[in-house]
Amino acid sequence: MTTEQLVEQIHKKQSFLCIGLDTDLEKIPPHLLVEEDPLFAFNKAIIDATHHLCVAYKPNTAFYEAYGIKGWQALERTIKYLNENYPEIFTIADAKRGDIGNTSTRYAKAFFEELGFDSVTIAPYMGRDSVEPFLDFDHKHTILLALTSNEGAYDFQTNMVDGELYKKVLKTSLTYKNSQNLMYVVGATKASFLEDIRAIIPDSFLLVPGVGAQGGSLKEVCHYGMNKQIGLLVNSSRGIIYASNGLGFAKEAAKKAEELQQQMKVELKSLS
Amino acid sequence: MTTEQLVEQIHKKQSFLCIGLDTDLEKIPPHLLVEEDPLFAFNKAIIDATHHLCVAYKPNTAFYEAYGIKGWQALERTIKYLNENYPEIFTIADAKRGDIGNTSTRYAKAFFEELGFDSVTIAPYMGRDSVEPFLDFDHKHTILLALTSNEGAYDFQTNMVDGELYKKVLKTSLTYKNSQNLMYVVGATKASFLEDIRAIIPDSFLLVPGVGAQGGSLKEVCHYGMNKQIGLLVNSSRGIIYASNGLGFAKEAAKKAEELQQQMKVELKSLS
Repeated sequence: MTTEQLVEQIHKKQSFLCIGLDTDLEKIPPHLLVEEDPLFAFNKAIIDATHHLCVAYKPNTAFYEAYGIKGWQALERTIKYLNENYPEIFTIADAKRGDIGNTSTRYAKAFFEELGFDSVTIAPYMGRDSVEPFLDFDHKHTILLALTSNEGAYDFQTNMVDGELYKKVLKTSLTYKNSQNLMYVVGATKASFLEDIRAIIPDSFLLVPGVGAQGGSLKEVCHYGMNKQIGLLVNSSRGIIYASNGLGFAKEAAKKAEELQQQMKVELKSLS
Repeated sequence: MTTEQLVEQIHKKQSFLCIGLDTDLEKIPPHLLVEEDPLFAFNKAIIDATHHLCVAYKPNTAFYEAYGIKGWQALERTIKYLNENYPEIFTIADAKRGDIGNTSTRYAKAFFEELGFDSVTIAPYMGRDSVEPFLDFDHKHTILLALTSNEGAYDFQTNMVDGELYKKVLKTSLTYKNSQNLMYVVGATKASFLEDIRAIIPDSFLLVPGVGAQGGSLKEVCHYGMNKQIGLLVNSSRGIIYASNGLGFAKEAAKKAEELQQQMKVELKSLS
């Protein structure tokens, strides 16, 4: 999917919501556990109930890998289901990969070709030759961890006397080959950093986790982070998908998604 | 496996060799492609031929993920085969994972419990709460990327005016809860940094890739990196496993492994 197509979807749906599919057998409604593939059954129900309210889904690979082959199968089924039924949706493999050149190429093939995701999240620690193999793919997007939503972000990302590491990551990434295929992870819990971030990457899309359960504010994120082509995908995972664990869980998830979508509609209006 | 058991194996086998199982269908002997699971068939043959020459195997997950479910199945079979037949071998999932707390816990469960690896490689960018969930597991080891073997390592890891990032990673990691469960990745191509690294972490084990195909020197690594309990696992992947792609590929791989093991024996002798 191209960035233009993504922006078009945001305007059409009046939403820049991304729903995180952090699907956990201990948290999904117990009545689904009798299904042959409970992880996929849950995802399918959530997707069918919420696809008109969001522009992106983001399964985090950790939740699938924790169940071994069955988990990997559920991940494959989920992305296949999305691509076949909702091709207008932007898909993100939240995998936080990154390795030396020839190995990064294997990861890129795994997520872009074998699974068919539009984008994948990447950790920058190993530098240029760990990132560029992902950037080689046309119409695929590489979402670089810049400033993450967790406490540990203060260990290294913000914590350098002569210039914060996350800024260095942003600046250096712009020199990478095919850097037009980059997006960035910036946690909603770090909204006050967004002004500085936009000074370095005014035009890029940001994937913003941390609204909701982690305490980030949508309003602040929009105030400091929105650009002319919106430039934001705001993610909520637990706050939406685990709204209820009763029979009507998908409907309840849709309600939570709609609450966020309605707030986004207001923010989009204030922009135009 | 405990560190003491690993050290015992090193002395017994006179080897601190780790063999990287970066198994690639385009590089394995073509006669294996008719097998039901060619990736596992290759790994099994390599393991059976080389297990007496090395103390560790390190499958890199990228090579398995690139083949989707079939790849994940081959990875599962490989670790199961190792644990059942060669329980004295130290196993490393070269996965370079790391995510916010509750998600890192899922990765830890995936690699330590579901798959049964002794250790997993972790990227430090997200800081403390992305690493500590891995350290929670007794007799499991978390191998933190410190100074990697690739060119991109110079992008961020070594590249700070007021103190290199990799040193900060090393120092900070020592403050993490259960930091005794840490090991570190230090590329053989950066052997000249080993003196500085040993000043910060004198006792930890280092996983050292980059000898062979990437140009690192075993002698230099031993000179600057070895400590009283050896403290080194030197990895070679392509240089061993793709020594030949004929019918006798496993035997040829064993020859290459033995060359390295013999050099290690000399280095071990010089220590005692």
